[in-house]
Amino acid sequence: MEHVLASGFVAGYQRDEMTEAEIEYEKSVYGPLTDAVRELVDATIRTTVDDDEIKAVQVEVEGIVARLRTSQLEGAYGVRYGATGRGRPWGNPTVGLRNAIAPPLVVDRSSDGRAWCGFHLGAAYEGPPGLVHGGVSALILDQMLGEATGAGGKPGMTATLTLRYRRGTPLGDLRAEAWIERSEGIKTWARGHIADAEGVTVEAEGLFILPRWARERIAAEAATPKYFE
Amino acid sequence: MEHVLASGFVAGYQRDEMTEAEIEYEKSVYGPLTDAVRELVDATIRTTVDDDEIKAVQVEVEGIVARLRTSQLEGAYGVRYGATGRGRPWGNPTVGLRNAIAPPLVVDRSSDGRAWCGFHLGAAYEGPPGLVHGGVSALILDQMLGEATGAGGKPGMTATLTLRYRRGTPLGDLRAEAWIERSEGIKTWARGHIADAEGVTVEAEGLFILPRWARERIAAEAATPKYFE
Repeated sequence: MEHVLASGFVAGYQRDEMTEAEIEYEKSVYGPLTDAVRELVDATIRTTVDDDEIKAVQVEVEGIVARLRTSQLEGAYGVRYGATGRGRPWGNPTVGLRNAIAPPLVVDRSSDGRAWCGFHLGAAYEGPPGLVHGGVSALILDQMLGEATGAGGKPGMTATLTLRYRRGTPLGDLRAEAWIERSEGIKTWARGHIADAEGVTVEAEGLFILPRWARERIAAEAATPKYFE
Repeated sequence: MEHVLASGFVAGYQRDEMTEAEIEYEKSVYGPLTDAVRELVDATIRTTVDDDEIKAVQVEVEGIVARLRTSQLEGAYGVRYGATGRGRPWGNPTVGLRNAIAPPLVVDRSSDGRAWCGFHLGAAYEGPPGLVHGGVSALILDQMLGEATGAGGKPGMTATLTLRYRRGTPLGDLRAEAWIERSEGIKTWARGHIADAEGVTVEAEGLFILPRWARERIAAEAATPKYFE
């Protein structure tokens, strides 16, 4: 465990000294591309155009991929930090600006350890017909509980997470919220839920623990991420 | 709850009488398109081509989306059943042949209630740098436990799911397995885990319950899905 964390983990938090203006510019470039790809994921599931058109589109998409791959990162995106310390988890599958898998969640937070957001889930998040896949709810709640612990100054990695499914969550407009329940040293317990217009559909509680390598970095006043995912 | 299940849920399980040959043909058309879109999701995160090229690609992707949307399903894909009763959860975000969010998992199962698969997670599934997002592990394990219960003839919807994160799960080649622990009437308890080459990284246990509408359909010998997500 320590080996994995000490190598891949710390190395992945990169401070690149980008200014706020540069970050805003990058958002204006990559956000619309990601939105277009997200629409393509949805259209790929739902389209009923004829097979020749599907094949033609496939070839075009393959061509676009080849162009984008002429210059690319060797591995995953990681989490970057700009000059002001503002984090950019742009590859994250729930909140990442450059990840078309992300709905995306645009999360509000408060320093008392609360996080909340409204979001929309369409065809790409379906499990049982018309309903959100139970694992997608888990994915979103893991992120939201982590956001709450980070917002409250008690960041950690998920140690345990328990989901209670009260009823099916319909696809469509939803909201999620999470909050710190209590904290003892490096351990923080958080709770949260997803709700539709009629109320809570899924509840979650989790234990988040600040890993040793992060404690050492904090002690050394090194650049330390505020959120772990 | 009953309302949601009784309307959206049952309606979404559609028997369309497609033959095995027709299904295989459809797989040959849609599988490669979905693979190409999955590559595009990855390339969108990792590309470092210049901004003009990003913008050009965005416009092309938007054009492709418009073409695919000239004829499409009104809502989500649902779960279809062919003439032999073989299910096609092709919109599913973990196993769906037409869902570029899905890694995809290609799951083996046995009738004693076991399910297992090998899979690869790249940049699109990253949480902490270099590691799988904890919520993605939850998403995969929810599916795998559900697959095990269905394989053992004890299908159900997730009622509770608990994840224990033993260490970070590195991006890359992974495997997952799940099995039925015990069953009492409409309730089935399942367990499972994700592992890398060095062993288990995340464990899960869950309770799955067969909903009332499905019990009524089984009693009436109506077409009944074997898996709920």
